[in-house]
Amino acid sequence: MQTLQVDLGERSYPIHIGERLIDRAELFSDRIRGRQVAVVTNETVAPLYLDRLTQTLSDYSVTPVILPDGEEHKNWQTLQLIFDALLGARHDRNTTVIALGGGVIGDMAGYAASSYQRGVDFIQVPTTLLSQVDSSVGGKTGINHPLGKNMIGAFYQPRAVIIDTATLKTLPPRELSAGLAEVIKYGLICDEPFLGWLEANVDRLRALDPVVLTEAIHRSCAAKAKVVNADERESGVRAILNLGHTFGHAIETHMGYGVWLHGEAVSAGTVMALEMSCQLGWITRMERDRAIKLLQRAALPVVPPAQMKPQDFLEHMAVDKKVLDGRLRLVLLRRMGEAVVTGDFPRDVLETTLSASYGAMTEHLGA
Amino acid sequence: MQTLQVDLGERSYPIHIGERLIDRAELFSDRIRGRQVAVVTNETVAPLYLDRLTQTLSDYSVTPVILPDGEEHKNWQTLQLIFDALLGARHDRNTTVIALGGGVIGDMAGYAASSYQRGVDFIQVPTTLLSQVDSSVGGKTGINHPLGKNMIGAFYQPRAVIIDTATLKTLPPRELSAGLAEVIKYGLICDEPFLGWLEANVDRLRALDPVVLTEAIHRSCAAKAKVVNADERESGVRAILNLGHTFGHAIETHMGYGVWLHGEAVSAGTVMALEMSCQLGWITRMERDRAIKLLQRAALPVVPPAQMKPQDFLEHMAVDKKVLDGRLRLVLLRRMGEAVVTGDFPRDVLETTLSASYGAMTEHLGA
Repeated sequence: MQTLQVDLGERSYPIHIGERLIDRAELFSDRIRGRQVAVVTNETVAPLYLDRLTQTLSDYSVTPVILPDGEEHKNWQTLQLIFDALLGARHDRNTTVIALGGGVIGDMAGYAASSYQRGVDFIQVPTTLLSQVDSSVGGKTGINHPLGKNMIGAFYQPRAVIIDTATLKTLPPRELSAGLAEVIKYGLICDEPFLGWLEANVDRLRALDPVVLTEAIHRSCAAKAKVVNADERESGVRAILNLGHTFGHAIETHMGYGVWLHGEAVSAGTVMALEMSCQLGWITRMERDRAIKLLQRAALPVVPPAQMKPQDFLEHMAVDKKVLDGRLRLVLLRRMGEAVVTGDFPRDVLETTLSASYGAMTEHLGA
Repeated sequence: MQTLQVDLGERSYPIHIGERLIDRAELFSDRIRGRQVAVVTNETVAPLYLDRLTQTLSDYSVTPVILPDGEEHKNWQTLQLIFDALLGARHDRNTTVIALGGGVIGDMAGYAASSYQRGVDFIQVPTTLLSQVDSSVGGKTGINHPLGKNMIGAFYQPRAVIIDTATLKTLPPRELSAGLAEVIKYGLICDEPFLGWLEANVDRLRALDPVVLTEAIHRSCAAKAKVVNADERESGVRAILNLGHTFGHAIETHMGYGVWLHGEAVSAGTVMALEMSCQLGWITRMERDRAIKLLQRAALPVVPPAQMKPQDFLEHMAVDKKVLDGRLRLVLLRRMGEAVVTGDFPRDVLETTLSASYGAMTEHLGA
């Protein structure tokens, strides 16, 4: 087991990474204050891990909350089911909400924990690669609104993140790839040597080699924790974590939540950000193509959906959270391994990028 | 105009109190960062003050959000209307949400501000005495759940509180009295000399004498700010602000939200806490009756609804936030002007209090 401490003053918490951590009672009891616990999970994960986790928590009064599975359920109606369960079982302010599942479960359980009686304790047990390297670190919680993704939520830190790498054995390959999109992102934005490591190890990652998996998760969490430490409330540098997300959110919104996986949309969005960085002359075509190749080896899409026109992107991006006072800001690569957040680009470069992505970029499919 | 600074480090904010402050543009512009503003109000307050406030904010792009009036609308469905309006008008993260109305509007607008894009700026313009002395100070925001009051919410501080005492001229007398319940509470819990001042001035307060009104609001806000400063997240001493609230919430829940005004329920609940303090020998019957008399002079109810049986109270109180690990904690008076939070009382004293309140205490009605 490896442990990473996220340093946020009195709200600091540990991230434990290793095999079969779901069975380690002491990792939980160290971070639980009361006698009540609610385990929030979904219909897919519950049959796989709920009994084992309940066993681990046998010293506590456990309320299971089993939600429907999928991004399309990341809304208020589903969130209410958590509140109903907590109030129905009379959970008090000393309760702990444990998220057992992927990013959707983590986001909803975390937001529920932040709002239940104005805030109760929260532990993350992420069971997808995406949530292990992304959603479980950084304190972002929330739900979607029909007019935009993650528009309702809170910054709320967990008391602990417990990552059991063995849970990835039950993850569909498509979701493993989606998680790799975020892993590759860390290399692109702040760790160029990690890109080389990933090129050498991407096949072993896809084969779930436990040693490289632990290394990749640890390195990703450390990269994210470093960025988050520097900027907890996303006023500045933290926004570089959103490489590919502004384009990606447009794809997810346009296609309808859940049609494209988040990581898939981020992958195509990352390629669009690379293309734009290339148009601006900040990275070379060769560097752009190197990153596209790595994403392709991770079995990820590298072009947006064929039906999305440039105008569709512009409309969706106008309500993105990165828009400040009407000015669009994007995460781009100043060079490989160094991202910047900037609104300082000619409008026509954005339009050229969108046009290039619409149609012409399909050439990369065969590259 | 008097100004009180609530000292919470980087989240400190001013409380301005005075006549016609709604018209003072500089009080707002000093605390607004962006160009967008949403004014959240209700159908009762909008015709009275929305145009004036919009006039004051003429330098900004103003989105009015007019909600239905009443505690029964303090729920997720109504909260969604705020999010719909913000997203519909494409408000970004630099927007400011302004609450124009009573406690329900303040609680909902504040919770919406805390959750919109994970947190945007928030200014309170409370227009009822209750919200001026209570809801607008302390950072509590939230909505009700069918199983309990204020069960969903956040601790979220405003950027400013702007109290226009002239707005009380349009307040129904019953709601003015409800506000006085909280004013009297401050005397009971932490400021015994204030009780004497109130006994001398309660009639002038009810007649809306602007000088005594300003003094009472200022003294109440200062008392609350002092308690909140000491304990922002309600882990300890802050709970004394809930004198009468545990019994009061039971009354509100039992009667259905909105049937009894919050301040009316708190008044009857306060008398129950006084009765229990008296049973424990902490205050004398004369002191109890002195406080009851003051509440009666403020035209407040001093007994719970006749149909509420002791068992009804016990059931509702079991899900109250003051319950920690199954143990009921109550705010009681150790002596006049000094409240304590304690779970350290014989169960039968609680039951005797509830029985006394049910029936026998009607004698006070004629006192």
